[in-house]
Amino acid sequence: MARAPRKIHLAQFLVHGPTYHSHAMWRHPKTREAGFDWRRPELYEHIARTCERGKFDMVFFADLNYISDSFRGTLAPALKYGSQAPEHDPMPLLAWLGAVTKRVGLASTFSVSNQHPFYAARMWGTIDHLTSGRAGWNVVSSINHNQAANYGTEREPTDRRYERAHEYYQVCRQLWDSWDEDALVMDPEAPMFADANKVRRIDFEGEFFRSRGPLNVTPSPQNGPVILQAGTSPRGRDFAAQYAEGIFAIQPQREEAKKYRDDIRELVAKFGRDPDDCKLLFGAQVVIGSSEQEAQEKMAEHNELVEPEAGMTILSAHLDFDLSQLPPDSIMEEHEHPALQRMKTRYRTDDGRPLTVAEVAQRHGQSVSLPQFAGTPESVTDQLLDFVDHAGGDGFMLSPIYSPGAIGEFVDLVVPELQKRGRFRKRYSGTTLREHLRG
Amino acid sequence: MARAPRKIHLAQFLVHGPTYHSHAMWRHPKTREAGFDWRRPELYEHIARTCERGKFDMVFFADLNYISDSFRGTLAPALKYGSQAPEHDPMPLLAWLGAVTKRVGLASTFSVSNQHPFYAARMWGTIDHLTSGRAGWNVVSSINHNQAANYGTEREPTDRRYERAHEYYQVCRQLWDSWDEDALVMDPEAPMFADANKVRRIDFEGEFFRSRGPLNVTPSPQNGPVILQAGTSPRGRDFAAQYAEGIFAIQPQREEAKKYRDDIRELVAKFGRDPDDCKLLFGAQVVIGSSEQEAQEKMAEHNELVEPEAGMTILSAHLDFDLSQLPPDSIMEEHEHPALQRMKTRYRTDDGRPLTVAEVAQRHGQSVSLPQFAGTPESVTDQLLDFVDHAGGDGFMLSPIYSPGAIGEFVDLVVPELQKRGRFRKRYSGTTLREHLRG
Repeated sequence: MARAPRKIHLAQFLVHGPTYHSHAMWRHPKTREAGFDWRRPELYEHIARTCERGKFDMVFFADLNYISDSFRGTLAPALKYGSQAPEHDPMPLLAWLGAVTKRVGLASTFSVSNQHPFYAARMWGTIDHLTSGRAGWNVVSSINHNQAANYGTEREPTDRRYERAHEYYQVCRQLWDSWDEDALVMDPEAPMFADANKVRRIDFEGEFFRSRGPLNVTPSPQNGPVILQAGTSPRGRDFAAQYAEGIFAIQPQREEAKKYRDDIRELVAKFGRDPDDCKLLFGAQVVIGSSEQEAQEKMAEHNELVEPEAGMTILSAHLDFDLSQLPPDSIMEEHEHPALQRMKTRYRTDDGRPLTVAEVAQRHGQSVSLPQFAGTPESVTDQLLDFVDHAGGDGFMLSPIYSPGAIGEFVDLVVPELQKRGRFRKRYSGTTLREHLRG
Repeated sequence: MARAPRKIHLAQFLVHGPTYHSHAMWRHPKTREAGFDWRRPELYEHIARTCERGKFDMVFFADLNYISDSFRGTLAPALKYGSQAPEHDPMPLLAWLGAVTKRVGLASTFSVSNQHPFYAARMWGTIDHLTSGRAGWNVVSSINHNQAANYGTEREPTDRRYERAHEYYQVCRQLWDSWDEDALVMDPEAPMFADANKVRRIDFEGEFFRSRGPLNVTPSPQNGPVILQAGTSPRGRDFAAQYAEGIFAIQPQREEAKKYRDDIRELVAKFGRDPDDCKLLFGAQVVIGSSEQEAQEKMAEHNELVEPEAGMTILSAHLDFDLSQLPPDSIMEEHEHPALQRMKTRYRTDDGRPLTVAEVAQRHGQSVSLPQFAGTPESVTDQLLDFVDHAGGDGFMLSPIYSPGAIGEFVDLVVPELQKRGRFRKRYSGTTLREHLRG
């Protein structure tokens, strides 16, 4: 008997601001025509409902706590190009979207760099309650000097940040486990609201944190949110492999994507987990046309809307390194500054040609180096499945070229094609984000 | 020409947990019949919509980051009586309620003790955006050793806490002002997303905090939330008088309420503000019956549902002092321990009789010493207006004896009576919380 074709998972990438991955998006005619108001909840309500209609696993918000001055040492270019500036707090928006959706997972980045783990455990436990188990937390450890300065601290070296992140997660985990599931009695006659024998202090005394507990939140439907991660450094991969149930990865080269996937699965197994319990979603920017030619023209139109300086601004921000120091026509991978090593797999084309600094920056401005998939709905479906069947992995984190229109087009045109081929769910079988990811 | 009668303001007191001010509430038959599920957003959606139907200024959530062990040094009594244990995070719930209401103000306590002001400024600016200017922040500085222990810190002396709170507010204020109102251009042709000349660093270097800024949130409808306060200490009153646009006060004795009101208005004026810009709301627990006798019986039934030990537990928690050390029949105000001085105005009856420790605890268990107003809708209206006309002040923060039923009864029975007498709005004239408070 033939095995049923493997189903993929889909997450919608969003930011509570004007720029997702594309620096052309806010300027795109179709974004403008739609009256794109990134400050208003109505935009995100529409998007979340659209993704729920499309049976997506989740909508996901990235997040930053700063406006970058990495390019030329000034805020001016980030402000001029709307380059991740501003970004409003995604957490209140995530809760807001809980009220207007029923099934789609709701995930966000929340940095462990600045708030105490008691705060994070309480907030995420609460969101998981309110959403009946649809919460997902992308655990990040901030690396940018601008964010550190906003919080009056200094940037820490990567290893140290991840040691801290591990401990942070341990405090949260113990707090989520500080109530037994049956501790809540709510017997008005006794009276006994909760059984004190089933609620414990944690008395955590670590290198970075202390917390006594217990948490003042009862066990939530998923007992804490689903943990997501996007680590690329060896320490980041270790963190992801130990705790994450979902990983987002930007891997524009197919062979690098495959290597990354094999490496992650091996690591997950090394930590005694089933690699299938950690779903790997690759970032993808999709351009849909009614013909191949129209799709190519749409992609070109979009890419040309990215100002070269906008690309330099966002790539400088992500590397936290001022690229105005480098000759634009020099080969990116030949520069040996340590800050430039983290994104190395993005410095070549898919067929291995090394890119110049200007070319890498341009691609970063277009899609933060997400691979672009352009074509008719059928052809895009072919390309996506070809990528994920070659590289392995479990699906995609999608990022639109205009908002919200491109999200609706994917749901209306590509999702049915994936469903027709038996590669994507036609209905939700579970109610929680964890069930979506495992279903 | 006769002056129009002065309109009052109304706030609904809530907690994201089983206990508001009454320790009988979760056990009350009418609460149980209503299927009270304090963990579910549906309960709060119903309440917020009810208050909006009643044209309330706001719903307001108190908050704590701990379960108290102040009574007998153990968590057991707080858990047994549901004494502010558990309390889920009100901030995600506040945002959630934004999605299901249109006009009512949405306010919450958020402590300045543990998160950096950059975080608070960003979160509150965002909530004010999402709610189109309906956000209110009750600024508190936590004083309980349990909360300190959960965050791995030590409790600080009151003066020091308020110095820190002042600086905290200053950082937030400067961050909210770091963008000019017209800094956002969003011109796709130029391109110019924002005008960098209209966005500034704050470079704050204080005694407690550093922050570079700018905020990555644009100016919100109220340019930050409305500031609320509930300070009783001299330093707390100073803080309130300088920044608050609304003050909550628990003053069970009419004469003390009047003194408090006069003192606050004088202080507000001393800081160069118009005392009318700082609205004073007194806590009130209302019991409505179809006759005086029924109301008195309802009040007695409610009050008897408070176990003496529950009263001891909550009063010990609020004083952060173990009352099991004191003889229950001793006169409360005769004990000289410094921890007991903060709530001194709650240790006598309205006509001046000193209460025993057990009596104060019982009243604290019933209503956290909020005055109780029992009667028919007409009589309750008389009593409330008599209180506020005698003491001065601008209205009430209401706390129910059962939930959500008593909230609906107030809206359906007392609000129309207040409106008939010209003492409460019939419709919202503004859209923001600030406009509600000033209207």
